[in-house]
Amino acid sequence: MRIGMLGTGVVGQTLEGKLTELGHDVKVGSRDPARSFEAAAAHGELIFNATAGGASLNALRMAGADNLAGKVLVDVSNPLDFSHGFPPILTVCNTDSVAEQIQREFPDARVVKSLNTVNANVMVDPALVPGDHNLFVAGNDDGAKAEVRALLEAFGWPAERLIDLGGIDAARALEMYLPLWLRLFQAAGTAHVNIQLMRARE
Amino acid sequence: MRIGMLGTGVVGQTLEGKLTELGHDVKVGSRDPARSFEAAAAHGELIFNATAGGASLNALRMAGADNLAGKVLVDVSNPLDFSHGFPPILTVCNTDSVAEQIQREFPDARVVKSLNTVNANVMVDPALVPGDHNLFVAGNDDGAKAEVRALLEAFGWPAERLIDLGGIDAARALEMYLPLWLRLFQAAGTAHVNIQLMRARE
Repeated sequence: MRIGMLGTGVVGQTLEGKLTELGHDVKVGSRDPARSFEAAAAHGELIFNATAGGASLNALRMAGADNLAGKVLVDVSNPLDFSHGFPPILTVCNTDSVAEQIQREFPDARVVKSLNTVNANVMVDPALVPGDHNLFVAGNDDGAKAEVRALLEAFGWPAERLIDLGGIDAARALEMYLPLWLRLFQAAGTAHVNIQLMRARE
Repeated sequence: MRIGMLGTGVVGQTLEGKLTELGHDVKVGSRDPARSFEAAAAHGELIFNATAGGASLNALRMAGADNLAGKVLVDVSNPLDFSHGFPPILTVCNTDSVAEQIQREFPDARVVKSLNTVNANVMVDPALVPGDHNLFVAGNDDGAKAEVRALLEAFGWPAERLIDLGGIDAARALEMYLPLWLRLFQAAGTAHVNIQLMRARE
């Protein structure tokens, strides 16, 4: 599949590497005109937003609404602002989320929130963390979520560990989890951590 | 131990029942003058705040700073506001938390945040949920956290499943987890859910 990767940080690079290994044709975009957000988005049949959450809307504007329309847009971002030190604050939360902002501004994009709750290495190699730990998807378009689940399974996530949390407003919960993730990272002493949902058997 | 239980909702009642079963002398307080917050706080050597997060500061003011000074104050509250429907919003989050508000206003109380991440039944009977799922503590006073850990172990939480997340500012992470907890509750179809921290072995 042709994939547009918006963002050249660790997350973008890690996802690009895995997708390329899986045989996808990935074009990476950044603010650099030589490999622009627009060119990457135009290339992709499916787009990843791996930019920083606070910069995502601007990056997507540079990508262009026409280049997003009708396409699955996987939002991996987190609105973390470390400029005031630790713990970071979120640039948007509680009554809104980056994913919802994106879906509102680009209503023709098929936004799916996922992958933002784990470290980049774990995203593409879930076996780095033992146990049946979970990953989440949220979005308004069931077909888009199914496409993303298929990609996640190709990354190594067993289907039964992917939990659908509902519509794109569930992205608030996934983004607001990040402060706890950061604390778990600190407590565990490794970024290769994740949570496993345990539930009573009926 | 003499314990003051502030709050007569499901959480307060459930904690009262378990603590009484364990042999503690619990006095419950509410806005009702017949069993006031003040009387409950005066009675307790250790206090639980099991009031709604948005009402906690007022309840503690009614309890009286003198009745809290020097005592361990276990803050179980969540600042959930369902008045706008689902998903609820938090009345405080991101740059602050109920627990921090309490600690600031009552600097002589030894505030420990815990138990707010699970359903009331699970709080006092962790075996309702299978697996080695975790519970968290946060607070500035290590001695206070040790007292709370001992109580939690008496509730049935094995010591190795209690994770110390650091100072009282970690309460932000625990309170901001609630929107995800609500989604997990929905996805699992039962409130008897919890998360287990999985980490890479070094």
